[in-house]
Amino acid sequence: MVLPLDDCYFMKKALQEATYAFDAGEIPVGAVIVIQDRIIARSHNLTEKLNDVTAHAEMQAITSAANFLGGKYLKDCTLYVTLEPCQMCAGALYWSQIGRIVYAAKDLQRGCGAMGTTLHPKTSIEGGIMEQEAALLLQRFFAGKRK
Amino acid sequence: MVLPLDDCYFMKKALQEATYAFDAGEIPVGAVIVIQDRIIARSHNLTEKLNDVTAHAEMQAITSAANFLGGKYLKDCTLYVTLEPCQMCAGALYWSQIGRIVYAAKDLQRGCGAMGTTLHPKTSIEGGIMEQEAALLLQRFFAGKRK
Repeated sequence: MVLPLDDCYFMKKALQEATYAFDAGEIPVGAVIVIQDRIIARSHNLTEKLNDVTAHAEMQAITSAANFLGGKYLKDCTLYVTLEPCQMCAGALYWSQIGRIVYAAKDLQRGCGAMGTTLHPKTSIEGGIMEQEAALLLQRFFAGKRK
Repeated sequence: MVLPLDDCYFMKKALQEATYAFDAGEIPVGAVIVIQDRIIARSHNLTEKLNDVTAHAEMQAITSAANFLGGKYLKDCTLYVTLEPCQMCAGALYWSQIGRIVYAAKDLQRGCGAMGTTLHPKTSIEGGIMEQEAALLLQRFFAGKRK
């Protein structure tokens, strides 16, 4: 059986990245960037390992995708990320002029929607793809931290 | 004569960084991060050289200062930057919980003030220190680009 290269397919890849973060004791957020059905960047949150608040999954994915493409604009790309981007990441996505953002779980506190961050006029955004899986991973992580 | 270690002193260091960006054909923005009158990070915009929209002066300075301190929070630090931070950089500064932000020129289009980016409640921000020098350098850069 050939799996269709749909939003669920790519979000599963982002979720796989999120589990790598989980296993490393990082807040489990993963991302992939796709152009023409091809994954050109994979990343997960590394803020603890790198001691660096800027090491969110999305930031690394943007840098990596631009490096792959040899140009800093990601107009024809889609970002799949397991948690709604924060102000910083949405701000970086603004500069990248990325075509589309697809996220899984909503971040009601620090997400770009709640914070009112401006996206590029050419960028579309949608959430809720595999939301439960992504939210469950985050809940498991924070429940473990509280113990 | 010993120069006082005041806001102008540190902003001059940030302006020096901005001139390095200017000379390299980058939008001239420079930054330094200071803790207890000591500069622990210096950086300038490298978005063209690195082909990376995330390579703003502030982002590099945050990473560099956290690396120096061995921890990701910059609570006792001050960032001096020659242009008001954008959404991305203000979002990163939010996560860093930096104590103070001092900028030179205001960015009426893409600055965090105009964009309504939320700073950390513990962060103070002020602008206008050596504003004319910073604005002039930016004007010279964009005038040169238009030729």
